[in-house]
Amino acid sequence: GCTHIPERVPLCLDLLPALRGEDTTKSFFQELVNILLSYVCKSFRRSSKVLDFHHPHQLREGLEGFSLELPDQPENLEQLLVDCRDTLKYGVKTGHPRFFNQLSSGLDVIGLAGEWLTSTANTNMFTYEVSPVFILMEEILLRKMQEIVGWSEEEGDGVFCPGGTMSNLYSVLLARYHFFPEVKTKGMTALPRLILFTSAHSHYSVKKSAAVLGIGSDNVVVVKCNDRGKMITAELESSIITAKDQGCVPFYVNATAGTTVYGAFDPLNAIADICESHGLWLHVDAAWGGGLLMSKRHRVKLQGIERAWSVTWNPHKMMGAPLQCSAILVKKRGLLKDCNQMCAEYLFQTDKHYDTSYDTGDKTIQCGRHVDVFKLWLMWKAKGSEGFESQVNKCLENAEHLFDKLKQRPDFELVFKSEPEHSNVCFWYIPPSLRNMSPGPERNRRLHEVAPKIKAKMMEQGMAMIGYQPLGDKVNFFRCVFSNPATQTEDVDYLLEEIASLGHDICIRTETDL
Amino acid sequence: GCTHIPERVPLCLDLLPALRGEDTTKSFFQELVNILLSYVCKSFRRSSKVLDFHHPHQLREGLEGFSLELPDQPENLEQLLVDCRDTLKYGVKTGHPRFFNQLSSGLDVIGLAGEWLTSTANTNMFTYEVSPVFILMEEILLRKMQEIVGWSEEEGDGVFCPGGTMSNLYSVLLARYHFFPEVKTKGMTALPRLILFTSAHSHYSVKKSAAVLGIGSDNVVVVKCNDRGKMITAELESSIITAKDQGCVPFYVNATAGTTVYGAFDPLNAIADICESHGLWLHVDAAWGGGLLMSKRHRVKLQGIERAWSVTWNPHKMMGAPLQCSAILVKKRGLLKDCNQMCAEYLFQTDKHYDTSYDTGDKTIQCGRHVDVFKLWLMWKAKGSEGFESQVNKCLENAEHLFDKLKQRPDFELVFKSEPEHSNVCFWYIPPSLRNMSPGPERNRRLHEVAPKIKAKMMEQGMAMIGYQPLGDKVNFFRCVFSNPATQTEDVDYLLEEIASLGHDICIRTETDL
Repeated sequence: GCTHIPERVPLCLDLLPALRGEDTTKSFFQELVNILLSYVCKSFRRSSKVLDFHHPHQLREGLEGFSLELPDQPENLEQLLVDCRDTLKYGVKTGHPRFFNQLSSGLDVIGLAGEWLTSTANTNMFTYEVSPVFILMEEILLRKMQEIVGWSEEEGDGVFCPGGTMSNLYSVLLARYHFFPEVKTKGMTALPRLILFTSAHSHYSVKKSAAVLGIGSDNVVVVKCNDRGKMITAELESSIITAKDQGCVPFYVNATAGTTVYGAFDPLNAIADICESHGLWLHVDAAWGGGLLMSKRHRVKLQGIERAWSVTWNPHKMMGAPLQCSAILVKKRGLLKDCNQMCAEYLFQTDKHYDTSYDTGDKTIQCGRHVDVFKLWLMWKAKGSEGFESQVNKCLENAEHLFDKLKQRPDFELVFKSEPEHSNVCFWYIPPSLRNMSPGPERNRRLHEVAPKIKAKMMEQGMAMIGYQPLGDKVNFFRCVFSNPATQTEDVDYLLEEIASLGHDICIRTETDL
Repeated sequence: GCTHIPERVPLCLDLLPALRGEDTTKSFFQELVNILLSYVCKSFRRSSKVLDFHHPHQLREGLEGFSLELPDQPENLEQLLVDCRDTLKYGVKTGHPRFFNQLSSGLDVIGLAGEWLTSTANTNMFTYEVSPVFILMEEILLRKMQEIVGWSEEEGDGVFCPGGTMSNLYSVLLARYHFFPEVKTKGMTALPRLILFTSAHSHYSVKKSAAVLGIGSDNVVVVKCNDRGKMITAELESSIITAKDQGCVPFYVNATAGTTVYGAFDPLNAIADICESHGLWLHVDAAWGGGLLMSKRHRVKLQGIERAWSVTWNPHKMMGAPLQCSAILVKKRGLLKDCNQMCAEYLFQTDKHYDTSYDTGDKTIQCGRHVDVFKLWLMWKAKGSEGFESQVNKCLENAEHLFDKLKQRPDFELVFKSEPEHSNVCFWYIPPSLRNMSPGPERNRRLHEVAPKIKAKMMEQGMAMIGYQPLGDKVNFFRCVFSNPATQTEDVDYLLEEIASLGHDICIRTETDL
């Protein structure tokens, strides 16, 4: 008889760099790519769910054998592919045309290709010697973005950062260093009490930066906004004067171009005038609004941005680049380096044989830095500036469509009546039981419960996803945002029908139930 | 006659989400994957070059039609694939078995698979609702790493950060908040003069953190090291006492487990004793050395790490995970959240339908955060803890091999004589003209020029890559590090031959030439 020698199931040790590992590696990746591309295709199909929701404890318990635990012994390659499939299955399709939950949405396939290449190149942005091509691409992208902001050829510097919050942190760090360079060595105790200004609708990262940098979040003055979410400039000016009268030192104003919730644009020129007359650093947080600079029709909303001393602009938001891709642009050349350099000799040797001004790592507060530029570079090649323009225009048209629909419907109510400036549209769904109630605390209390209840049902159902929040005196409302070019007006219509159908029968506790 | 209607060259607009875009998308990715996998295979082949060096101006000028400029109009898909090929061609193969230039090297193909999936999922680590699976994987990985560090089940918290410098920054931020929670709102001006301690051989990120956080780099006391690069604990203790005598407030000590250049391990238990007796926060920067915890043979070098209040550990270094993958581990649970939370209501609503303690974004100083955990999770599944152990052991065996070879060769000189503790080996190549010179300033001056000259020739040739630097009173020397499991002893031998052959004829200016 014959003896059966069972073939061993392939393990990761059979992949490269193993001898004769090329074929196993290629076939493993072929199967992986099939899984990934089938996910990509599904992400764009309206018939597929946006998510398949499970609670943390359900996932931890290991659904259908999907174990998250880390083993001592290797798993085989077949099982790894199953793990990959499961990871995607229980995740959220952020590229789905009906995912409206975040400012970053969409799955740009060219951007994705860029990310695959980036991770294959697996290198670090600190020196030219290990990232020659990516360092140059970063320089070219930053230069282009500065040009679009409107800075002259003689000015402008910048760096890509891990997210908009880090970019905003850079702006505060640089402003402080610009006015008080001794802070780098002596610390804040050598300085007077510094004050920052930002609007009530601005992103929380300004306060966070003040806390991290040792300035203190109490030293961030929150300037009031009008009903539309725009900073009231008279309030800014009087806050500056008050701070000065109290013996404090105002040094920095953050103006927002595209607020997180309302999508509002602060009046940049008026704010720039105030900063100029008081000698303050003007930062424009255009993390969300920066994309509109690509559009001839919409860039007027950022008029005055060229007067900023620094700008945050996240191509991973309105321009659809994969996460993360955020730039801090700085008008004053050389400041980034002066502020952050530590001249580590093991990395930034000055006796190298090439032009070491291309070793940009000493400009950053990181050491190693992920390559975030290639995907954006490749997308720019693929679309051209004009491609970004039409993408942005389309997203804003979707917002206009939603706004028009909402105006016509008696079961929805707009949070503010004016046309959307960015792609944010904020609204309440009013369930039948609330439609004839008069405004007041009881209606507010009940209305506050509506959005979370609808969202919970929506997530269980999994056919769409949208965010909600309260803001100031407004109780929980939905915020719809468009940054996914895959979204069509039919998806907008679907969203409203979905909310109305989920919300029609929800149970809101009356006062007597409490 | 017949009219020829030329077929349009496909553009990115023909890819998904275009109608009938699936086939074009799949075939575009198929071609891309061929390019990427052929690069991966080449990376492991010793016959291929590590790099094809060009100066910045050469790349900017557009080599063989490789234009880096950003167009207004779209490029076609064929051209994009050419761009991808060129991007890889002019880059550096950091996975090549003869790339010794950085602490992070190697191309782990499972890690790479993990990155491809991560970018396909394209989501954000701030909330459970958009990253359910990844949030749980992060929790499980952090827990595992804390267990390996030696913390009990009741203690331990953490977060993955964009690089070790950010992880170290977290440690200083948390220490400051732990002792002076009022700093978050009031800033540093409310605090006494704080002092940090770190060794002369430690990473520059400790000073950088002090500068960024408003503590000031002058308030970092640099503690002397012994010849082997280890912190002298008597010096630490006397520095602490001196600082106290001067009316300052010592609060934080950074001990390094695996220094950047020498690969030295500070005596953790002795430092922990000092920290304990003075009530100081002990941070262990094990960015580079943490990987040794996976090895039963080598983890003894980190004895005492369990006494740290926080630990930096970069799996993208010794464990070979793709860039970036760095964890800050914190012993005191809840501190990260208390220190960093800002409770932004648009993101961290508390009226969600799931357990919102899984919305970990408020623990971080970022807002959006890249998914850095999946690749590590997948690698752990693929290798098991034991796979990491043998990988680490192998890298250290390569270092031992290099050390033994160097001892035998008259044309090389070791920077310090003791056995390598980590995989760093530091040495000079001594060209013939210097071999019989007596020690002194002139020999040092000449020797200082040797490594840069050899490195320049090596990069032009492109067959290997290694770093050099001066340190303290040691003039430029080579630092070889091993973290790439693809590297074999034959590659180590090759490196020495390459250096000797490039260095044999180099021209060093004598004093009279100057």
